[in-house]
Amino acid sequence: MNKTRLEAFSDAVLAIIITIMVLELKVPHGSTLSALEPLVPVILSYIMSFVFLAIYWNNHHHLLHTIKKVNGRILWANFHLLFWLSLVPFVTGWMGENHFAPATMALYGFILLMSALGYYILVLTILKSHGKDSLLARAIGKDLKGKISVVLYILGIAGTLINSWIAAAFYVAVAIIWLVPDKRIEQAIYSEENK
Amino acid sequence: MNKTRLEAFSDAVLAIIITIMVLELKVPHGSTLSALEPLVPVILSYIMSFVFLAIYWNNHHHLLHTIKKVNGRILWANFHLLFWLSLVPFVTGWMGENHFAPATMALYGFILLMSALGYYILVLTILKSHGKDSLLARAIGKDLKGKISVVLYILGIAGTLINSWIAAAFYVAVAIIWLVPDKRIEQAIYSEENK
Amino acid sequence: MNKTRLEAFSDAVLAIIITIMVLELKVPHGSTLSALEPLVPVILSYIMSFVFLAIYWNNHHHLLHTIKKVNGRILWANFHLLFWLSLVPFVTGWMGENHFAPATMALYGFILLMSALGYYILVLTILKSHGKDSLLARAIGKDLKGKISVVLYILGIAGTLINSWIAAAFYVAVAIIWLVPDKRIEQAIYSEENK
Amino acid sequence: MNKTRLEAFSDAVLAIIITIMVLELKVPHGSTLSALEPLVPVILSYIMSFVFLAIYWNNHHHLLHTIKKVNGRILWANFHLLFWLSLVPFVTGWMGENHFAPATMALYGFILLMSALGYYILVLTILKSHGKDSLLARAIGKDLKGKISVVLYILGIAGTLINSWIAAAFYVAVAIIWLVPDKRIEQAIYSEENK
Repeated sequence: MNKTRLEAFSDAVLAIIITIMVLELKVPHGSTLSALEPLVPVILSYIMSFVFLAIYWNNHHHLLHTIKKVNGRILWANFHLLFWLSLVPFVTGWMGENHFAPATMALYGFILLMSALGYYILVLTILKSHGKDSLLARAIGKDLKGKISVVLYILGIAGTLINSWIAAAFYVAVAIIWLVPDKRIEQAIYSEENK
Repeated sequence: MNKTRLEAFSDAVLAIIITIMVLELKVPHGSTLSALEPLVPVILSYIMSFVFLAIYWNNHHHLLHTIKKVNGRILWANFHLLFWLSLVPFVTGWMGENHFAPATMALYGFILLMSALGYYILVLTILKSHGKDSLLARAIGKDLKGKISVVLYILGIAGTLINSWIAAAFYVAVAIIWLVPDKRIEQAIYSEENK
Repeated sequence: MNKTRLEAFSDAVLAIIITIMVLELKVPHGSTLSALEPLVPVILSYIMSFVFLAIYWNNHHHLLHTIKKVNGRILWANFHLLFWLSLVPFVTGWMGENHFAPATMALYGFILLMSALGYYILVLTILKSHGKDSLLARAIGKDLKGKISVVLYILGIAGTLINSWIAAAFYVAVAIIWLVPDKRIEQAIYSEENK
Repeated sequence: MNKTRLEAFSDAVLAIIITIMVLELKVPHGSTLSALEPLVPVILSYIMSFVFLAIYWNNHHHLLHTIKKVNGRILWANFHLLFWLSLVPFVTGWMGENHFAPATMALYGFILLMSALGYYILVLTILKSHGKDSLLARAIGKDLKGKISVVLYILGIAGTLINSWIAAAFYVAVAIIWLVPDKRIEQAIYSEENK
């Protein structure tokens, strides 16, 4: 089974998820700029989720780039990841409409945590079928970023018991970790390809 | 006519169907976790439909993997299947919002039944144009799973006359039948390919 | 410029158009089968538009199958067609919710008419850049079906002045003309390919 | 990293953005043609945004056509562009529902301006990784159109302080600049390819 349709399907689902979040931006009734004020938290939460979903697309892109075969287990691990990501628009909307209330921040963190675990399971499933010596195995290495992310999400969720902004700080920290380009990994993949 | 666009179009429709179901998860007005309680049946019905649509995508993927030619009849049989699947978000929403009331469970089962028949018609249409000795014919065999599914759906729909949970049990049974990997079929296809 | 992205983009837009029509099927509040009664005209109009959009996808598929080059004019003619098709969900919803009232039927016919003209312009644009001796030119021939469709749509729109069902009859007639397989065209294309 | 998935993902997002704008066309309750009157500004704003998004798709298509390699920076520049474009349905809806009130026209122009800058950043990022002697560098040249567009958007936004229609005139002017085919660029690309 080749990976083309799996990539195409995942791309379509991610594109839809990232775009239907915009539907949560309900057109305000007033026609002045001040009518947009109540939308500020909704837009902030939209930006946050847009960045997280873009990071997932990037990582997913890199992950599938390294493999060739796809089996039934990988298909289902991929669906499991997409399931958690498909809930992002819902928790984003809830968080934005309620001005980052603690419970909404906790649920948001929980969905991000489950997505991170879903991604981790996908990585493990692929590694299992491709062997520990594969290009992927070397590129991933100890997956420090993934493990740190899980810890930060849990700290963020716990932080909502004290204050929403503690949670926000932890979630933003995860995004920054992933946004900073990890040159070593990229080089590992490409040096391999150009051998 | 090659199959690439048929696959791409079916993937897009399935991706959209699976994702717009999330729009049924309306953001609650309260900002506490208890505000999510009324959403529990909606989320349960979402999970159920997500799994069914994922199974259809998997089977559709395998089915089209074995063929090369596509004719007008196959295109229309595929549209017929997509039509019934496109109604899944509607019946999922109705079922979830009404806490699995019997009538909503019966309609849900009816749409699943029609989708199963639509899939069966698609298989027959492909078999007709590819011959009984084709790889597909051998892989499908007697299509026991498909036939059992139809029976279970009918039993489930009838079961709603007594109790919603009888129906739920039958529908979940269908999902389990398909989720358990059918190693023989997968091996049949791949052993053929690697000859 | 190759045609792959044009096909992919058109497929995505058509897939979304055909699927967001389902969002017009609003979940009813009652939990009995009789709660579905008001939805019957909405479902009928959904089926009608589903069939029309499926016919357009099929024809679009065949049309682009015969060409290799794509230029700026073809891109814009394609966008023009997609624009009219993108209005189908709106007129379908209006027609369904108003139980096929004459004005809604007239607007529905108008959008179908403009879509048919948009398709005709796309065909002419492609013919212009591929020459009259091309495979496409021979396959299309005098495009009798296209011309009859335009006449039937106009008769249908005029018919709404008398009665909605006259219009419906004309629209259904167009669908039937296209659904009946036109074996000569299909054979012309494939005999050419297998030379 | 090849560009196929980047193209596919961008196509999907653009297709969804262009299509969910139709959801802003809410089905009116009356069943006569006069019930459509309040929708006229909504439809006009839909047409305007449809044309702008089609122009972006065309330009994006040409831009990626000329490159082969994609790196992390290009992926993120592309996401940045998609972010601003994803806000087009929102500002289109706000503008249409408020009959082109000045503040709504200013925000619409702002989103178009940011999209234009996002596109410009994408072009620069691609140029940086492909070199100044590349096919793209010659095809783009001094990017006069892009620079004029930015000036016209700013004039349009400033114009909303006086009158909405001044802004509309500037925005329409940008669309016309891009719609008029720029034969030199197209020929530059194709003459290169046919060498």
